Amino acid sequence: MPDSVEIVEVGPRDGLQARAAFVATQDKITLVDRLAAAGLRQFEASSFVSPRAVPQLADAAEVIAGIPRCPGMTLAVLVPNLRGAEAAIAARADALVMFASASETHNLKNVNRPRAESLAGFRDIAAAARAADKPMHGAIATAFGCPFEGEVPVDEVVAMARHYAELGVRRITLGDTTGMATPRLVRERLAALGAELPDMPVALHFHNTRGMGLVNVAAGLEAGATRFESAIGGLGGCPFAPGATGNVCTEDLVHFLHEEGIATGLDLDALIETARWFEGVLGSPLPGQVAKAGPRLARRDTGEVATATG
Amino acid sequence: MPDSVEIVEVGPRDGLQARAAFVATQDKITLVDRLAAAGLRQFEASSFVSPRAVPQLADAAEVIAGIPRCPGMTLAVLVPNLRGAEAAIAARADALVMFASASETHNLKNVNRPRAESLAGFRDIAAAARAADKPMHGAIATAFGCPFEGEVPVDEVVAMARHYAELGVRRITLGDTTGMATPRLVRERLAALGAELPDMPVALHFHNTRGMGLVNVAAGLEAGATRFESAIGGLGGCPFAPGATGNVCTEDLVHFLHEEGIATGLDLDALIETARWFEGVLGSPLPGQVAKAGPRLARRDTGEVATATG
Repeated sequence: MPDSVEIVEVGPRDGLQARAAFVATQDKITLVDRLAAAGLRQFEASSFVSPRAVPQLADAAEVIAGIPRCPGMTLAVLVPNLRGAEAAIAARADALVMFASASETHNLKNVNRPRAESLAGFRDIAAAARAADKPMHGAIATAFGCPFEGEVPVDEVVAMARHYAELGVRRITLGDTTGMATPRLVRERLAALGAELPDMPVALHFHNTRGMGLVNVAAGLEAGATRFESAIGGLGGCPFAPGATGNVCTEDLVHFLHEEGIATGLDLDALIETARWFEGVLGSPLPGQVAKAGPRLARRDTGEVATATG
Repeated sequence: MPDSVEIVEVGPRDGLQARAAFVATQDKITLVDRLAAAGLRQFEASSFVSPRAVPQLADAAEVIAGIPRCPGMTLAVLVPNLRGAEAAIAARADALVMFASASETHNLKNVNRPRAESLAGFRDIAAAARAADKPMHGAIATAFGCPFEGEVPVDEVVAMARHYAELGVRRITLGDTTGMATPRLVRERLAALGAELPDMPVALHFHNTRGMGLVNVAAGLEAGATRFESAIGGLGGCPFAPGATGNVCTEDLVHFLHEEGIATGLDLDALIETARWFEGVLGSPLPGQVAKAGPRLARRDTGEVATATG
């Protein structure tokens, strides 16, 4: 198990795009600013995709411009094509995230083109990023399973990672887009990537759709992973499926890591306060558990009792 | 990791006692019957505590009498004292569960007497159980932490387990009463019990209060545990704290175990159907995730899409 890990906060992008309602630009900016005050430095801050496709993030440029910078902060953004990359560079985003799905059907449904076309288009993005001296990341969606195709062969994931590496990305993210990851698959995929691309940093991006978010994180830790993506409050659940949680919850993840003696550099109490504040902004509860129950050693002095054992 | 594990269903007891509303006796009976049809054999079926203290389970005798028995079925019930034990024996319960807390303050608040008095009273229960040839189990509440006292020394847990062993119990349960268990504590406590009582079967009873239920199960599996207690649908959350889940969810646990290649003998689809049916009985959603999302390989053929990666 590592001594410390890095958390990448993806709530402002992956979390907010899953919600029906538009969150005000200033609230998005304040969210990132509060998370930075809690110690977070790596953000997936927004997405320069078509505002018709993702109206929730139509204010990407304003969000990036409005976030107060602090030392070490990286505001990464998703870019689907050259136009998105140019807009992201003009908006002074710090890093560009290219993305495609490991399964053909999901790629077609997600971005309306075959994987080969996505991969070909990355060359233009990479050229623009290099010209602007912006680091690139490569995200692999449906890396642990596809809701349309079922199991995704590990070779597809490795092939896409190799393509990203050839383009010069500085980090690969394995995206568990619809919560299909299992510890067995986490071990398998990390081992295959480690054998093929031993020097490539890999981030794990889990969804808690089937309750296995943290158990997959634990499997990743045991396999040597040191970078995890999560969303404050567990943002990202479908608003039309109550209780169907989305991303792994940042404060639940940090609570777990700290209890295991793994440092994050983050202030758990400040994360919890931010999650509770953002529930108020959204006007609805979020699926995170620690913000409701409090850290495990937060004592109750009152008469609240679990009657007759538990 | 073990090849197979045994699941003990505690929803009818630990799950239902946490809910404000009384569930009709026939619904409780049907719940156990449906769970038995899904393959479950070990149940914590009810509790012979004071109906004033736990009115939700005031129908314990009727529930035990009404459940259709099948081969290998064990209907265990909680008994707080000799009177409860006698009532349980008269009702033809199959096993008696004694319980006390590892922490003094929780024991006082839970059963209104010091631990020493609880332990002394177990002698009478044990004598009655032996006379009636009923196996006994020993439950240790707050085995991973106390909401009033904080950390619980492992020595307190071992001392209570030793006391139970001297009384002749056939199984010890470590109860994570308020969701304070962590993988580190699971490893520590199982190692200490294994050293002190190497032949005593130990069941792990986790609550998902802070989202760590399955990660604690995973730690238990790696430490050799083969018996886990859980509740269908994740029953057991406080009805006044939306989203504050209770017991580890049976169908989420089974989904996880099966994906890890660990057999349970249970029919996951039947568990999911039972969870969904019981949500209808209760008239409110339960926190289990797999009953909402479906098993990870249940495909979607429609146009439902996670827009622009995940």
